Amino acid sequence: MAAKDFNGMGLSLLEISHRSKQFMAVMDEAEALVCELLGLNDDYGVVFLTGGASTQFFMAPMNLLNRDDRASYIDTGVWASKAIEEAVHFAHIDVLASSKDSNYNYIPRDYSVPKYAKYLHITSNNTIFGSQYHFWPDIEQCIVCDMSSDMFSRPIPVEKFGLIYAGAQKNMGPAGTTLVIVRKDLLGKVSHHLPSMLDYRVHIKNGSMYNTPPVFPIYVSMLTMRWIKAQGGLSGIQKINESKAKIIYDEIDANPLFKGTVNTTDRSLMNACFVMNDPTLEKEFGDLAKSNGIDGIAGHRSVGGFRASIYNAMPQSSVQVLVDLMKEYAVKKG
Amino acid sequence: MAAKDFNGMGLSLLEISHRSKQFMAVMDEAEALVCELLGLNDDYGVVFLTGGASTQFFMAPMNLLNRDDRASYIDTGVWASKAIEEAVHFAHIDVLASSKDSNYNYIPRDYSVPKYAKYLHITSNNTIFGSQYHFWPDIEQCIVCDMSSDMFSRPIPVEKFGLIYAGAQKNMGPAGTTLVIVRKDLLGKVSHHLPSMLDYRVHIKNGSMYNTPPVFPIYVSMLTMRWIKAQGGLSGIQKINESKAKIIYDEIDANPLFKGTVNTTDRSLMNACFVMNDPTLEKEFGDLAKSNGIDGIAGHRSVGGFRASIYNAMPQSSVQVLVDLMKEYAVKKG
Repeated sequence: MAAKDFNGMGLSLLEISHRSKQFMAVMDEAEALVCELLGLNDDYGVVFLTGGASTQFFMAPMNLLNRDDRASYIDTGVWASKAIEEAVHFAHIDVLASSKDSNYNYIPRDYSVPKYAKYLHITSNNTIFGSQYHFWPDIEQCIVCDMSSDMFSRPIPVEKFGLIYAGAQKNMGPAGTTLVIVRKDLLGKVSHHLPSMLDYRVHIKNGSMYNTPPVFPIYVSMLTMRWIKAQGGLSGIQKINESKAKIIYDEIDANPLFKGTVNTTDRSLMNACFVMNDPTLEKEFGDLAKSNGIDGIAGHRSVGGFRASIYNAMPQSSVQVLVDLMKEYAVKKG
Repeated sequence: MAAKDFNGMGLSLLEISHRSKQFMAVMDEAEALVCELLGLNDDYGVVFLTGGASTQFFMAPMNLLNRDDRASYIDTGVWASKAIEEAVHFAHIDVLASSKDSNYNYIPRDYSVPKYAKYLHITSNNTIFGSQYHFWPDIEQCIVCDMSSDMFSRPIPVEKFGLIYAGAQKNMGPAGTTLVIVRKDLLGKVSHHLPSMLDYRVHIKNGSMYNTPPVFPIYVSMLTMRWIKAQGGLSGIQKINESKAKIIYDEIDANPLFKGTVNTTDRSLMNACFVMNDPTLEKEFGDLAKSNGIDGIAGHRSVGGFRASIYNAMPQSSVQVLVDLMKEYAVKKG
């Protein structure tokens, strides 16, 4: 954009009214791109909200469950746990499976969803632990999914989902907006009061303009979705992501100094977590990476080691820089 | 800022982690500037949230009132009414006064706040109707105030307020963050469950970083507060705002074609609302303004006529352009 002259208005995007036809066009295009990329039909409402996944942790049960309803949750990490902690105040929450006792290094498969569950909640990608769903549970109910960290990284079978939510800040745009996609027929079935701002129906009805939306994060999200479309849409971006993940995981597996922390089948295409066979070398390798311009690869304190976050925006050439350094370091350590 | 190289990191503000020390410094400075501009002491918590005033309409009563408590509200316009509509679901809300029957053209003074009220809620500036509080009710209880449209436009006696909230998008920064200032001793007194994201204490404890904050709107807010400080702080900006408002209201009062819609004592320094004595001329004057590069002065449909919004960012020279055109038009219609 011409930063100070948005669409020839002589004003920047930040100066114009969110009710101007110029910003309405941004909002409309953002919504249309979500539908196009995911192949959504009119059964789904698409809204841009705020408050992140942390707000969806309670908005989802608040909108979908009555006090006496039950819903099933799978615990695959810190964010899945927080979703559970917030949900228990609204209905009966059954945690069907958890990988906590092995430090969340896999995605549980060994459970069945009870018939009385209104939905199954999962967290599709676990940023801290580097695990990701590469299968979608085959159940009668709909899936409610926190897709914050792998939204728009691959195609998904939308019809399996009743509600998808994602904070923008990984693959969609800058922090400050949250994408929510919800099957409209699931709404309007709760008997308790919903404040207007917490009622998905209000936002759907008002086209994400019930209150002043975060114009800049939505605008940048729109631009990013245009870019994803230009990469060949979600199947195009998936190929790129698989290729990027392959070179880092291949190196982790081949290199005698490193090992992955997650079960091979559940490894994340977004966050490659790995440690060193000799943990005393981790500081040296971390410093070496930093001095080679590789920033932000320290693993989360609950896992240790390293985490290469390779979201959509990370080019393969940058992943290769890290892979080359790992190779060189192994030669040096001989 | 160097847009693509924030503080010499080689990355833009939108690419760095919100947990990086560089962004933490932005957040710390933003909070410190709020305290400095308003003269806040440690009795108050200052947080940057999302969801706008519309979210505060229910968060305020949710955090401050138990089910059986009572609070008093004054209805001075559309936003004050919405605050009331959202609050009634949480406690007993007494609407002590309303200027609705005269299309909100004044600020009510004729009421007394009952002893049992936990707080008095007011809307300090009413954007649609162009009225503003130029007095602060002298009561025993604290005031809870929606200051979205005149925050940082003038000094305020902070000690009278228990809670102040303001969407950023008028005087503070781009849409996408909401400033909340709350007296900490008022919190923690409700017996019902508060979701973490709706609990002021959680955000205060985490320095507005409980979840990923909207980094760009907060950064621009910080820059704007630096600018306000450079204008001589709130008393400096007040002088500028009074001077800007004086030239437009003087013209409205002197010009035979126009008249103000709000009682003189309650006129807003932020939104000057006026109509034409001959309403059939309004379209012509509106078109003339547009052709002279003056955009966005159509009054809200519930008032009609014109509304000159002259927030902090509007320079006096731009107000003068409108005033000159009003003068010229009167001569022409002579």
